[in-house]
Amino acid sequence: MTATETLEAPAPVVIEHPHHRKLVIMAWSGDLDKIWPVLILSSTAAASGVRCRVFVTFWGLLPFVKDEKGIVGENWMQKMLTLMQRPGIDHLKLSKMNFLGMGPWMMGTLRKQYNVASPRELLEAATALGVEFIPCQMTMDMFGLKREDLIDEMGEPAGAATAIEIMTEADASLFI
Amino acid sequence: MTATETLEAPAPVVIEHPHHRKLVIMAWSGDLDKIWPVLILSSTAAASGVRCRVFVTFWGLLPFVKDEKGIVGENWMQKMLTLMQRPGIDHLKLSKMNFLGMGPWMMGTLRKQYNVASPRELLEAATALGVEFIPCQMTMDMFGLKREDLIDEMGEPAGAATAIEIMTEADASLFI
Amino acid sequence: MTATETLEAPAPVVIEHPHHRKLVIMAWSGDLDKIWPVLILSSTAAASGVRCRVFVTFWGLLPFVKDEKGIVGENWMQKMLTLMQRPGIDHLKLSKMNFLGMGPWMMGTLRKQYNVASPRELLEAATALGVEFIPCQMTMDMFGLKREDLIDEMGEPAGAATAIEIMTEADASLFI
Repeated sequence: MTATETLEAPAPVVIEHPHHRKLVIMAWSGDLDKIWPVLILSSTAAASGVRCRVFVTFWGLLPFVKDEKGIVGENWMQKMLTLMQRPGIDHLKLSKMNFLGMGPWMMGTLRKQYNVASPRELLEAATALGVEFIPCQMTMDMFGLKREDLIDEMGEPAGAATAIEIMTEADASLFI
Repeated sequence: MTATETLEAPAPVVIEHPHHRKLVIMAWSGDLDKIWPVLILSSTAAASGVRCRVFVTFWGLLPFVKDEKGIVGENWMQKMLTLMQRPGIDHLKLSKMNFLGMGPWMMGTLRKQYNVASPRELLEAATALGVEFIPCQMTMDMFGLKREDLIDEMGEPAGAATAIEIMTEADASLFI
Repeated sequence: MTATETLEAPAPVVIEHPHHRKLVIMAWSGDLDKIWPVLILSSTAAASGVRCRVFVTFWGLLPFVKDEKGIVGENWMQKMLTLMQRPGIDHLKLSKMNFLGMGPWMMGTLRKQYNVASPRELLEAATALGVEFIPCQMTMDMFGLKREDLIDEMGEPAGAATAIEIMTEADASLFI
């Protein structure tokens, strides 16, 4: 092992244990008020010793685009979609009560006042704790997203058959 | 058996096997972007040998109204509801970003470009593969829908007690 | 036991039985058309002998604020949030098609015509049948809600770890 290698954080090792409980979350929404429960539940699950896999699909994939990207997509329609819902974890909108940004701003202020973690902080905690985020291949195709457009912490893209398999063998599955 | 009988496609035979995994989906939403995961997950489940039952309720029931129907319902309020959310599988709206139809049109174009099946094609695949669609009796009453207003592939109407029973005996249940 | 004590309705006794099936609902939405399935499914579950726990979080908590309260919250932002989504079970809005109140009014009229219970009646039935409603502590903090702001029938506030635990040991879990 070289000095350079020791500087890198080790990837979280998920050991499948027969007594491990398992949670699967289908993260479909890209709204701030839905991303919050996805990240709070997944990081809390991992912290409680529950193996948690998050299948990230449709609007839910856009918050997992790298923030420096801005506009993503290969053709004008895909670029337009990402203009309408800005990708990245730091600029999410509420599902309602946006009022030109006042709703999300109030939520952010209340959140800080009561020491609730931000989506970015929760995402870092979740990946550090070993939550596995699986991007939906079909969504990547339709939105023109390449693997390098997504944050590095995501796992390999997969399809609906994988989603079905992990859900039916989990102890609980949620569609958020 | 007569010649006429042999012309009809046989109903899908669902054999309950002790090792069969089971998935239940509560299809509550009538939005295009929610119908898509309902149909992709249910048809993929059935294709993977997972028994899938879809309990279709509230707004989710309107896409399962026969397309030739147009306006359904028995009194003016029910007729008005179906004017506001057009029934049938071919004219669904997105939950957001509709922009006078541009959002659904872009989705449809991207879908074709990437060989993703349409809701109608997915619905045909799902029923052919043996997915069981169960209409919610209470929703039919409130929206003034009769059994013959719904597509022929749907099963017998049922109530919340049935939903509870099939969910608690399934390996995974989703509310979409 | 005194005469006064006998006048009070006994708290529902939930006996944990190894063969009892269990349902958990994460009630996230405060919309009329989502509160309805939460209350119909939970009360039907309890009536069918299924132990049902409802973890009430985010927008979902506002319908469980006492009706006489009006505006709740400790600072102006919290007060403003509850001005935008009026708390209490009797004045819920639909997730769409509100049209200045016409949508909810039509739903209410159709509901009565077809003998479907109101949210208030369903809530009373659910608590009488032993459904356990658990308020989310983090939501209470962010919205500035105190225990006495919520209806008396609610249980003790709890956090995400409790939600994970009850979901992974239940037979079915839904996020509504």
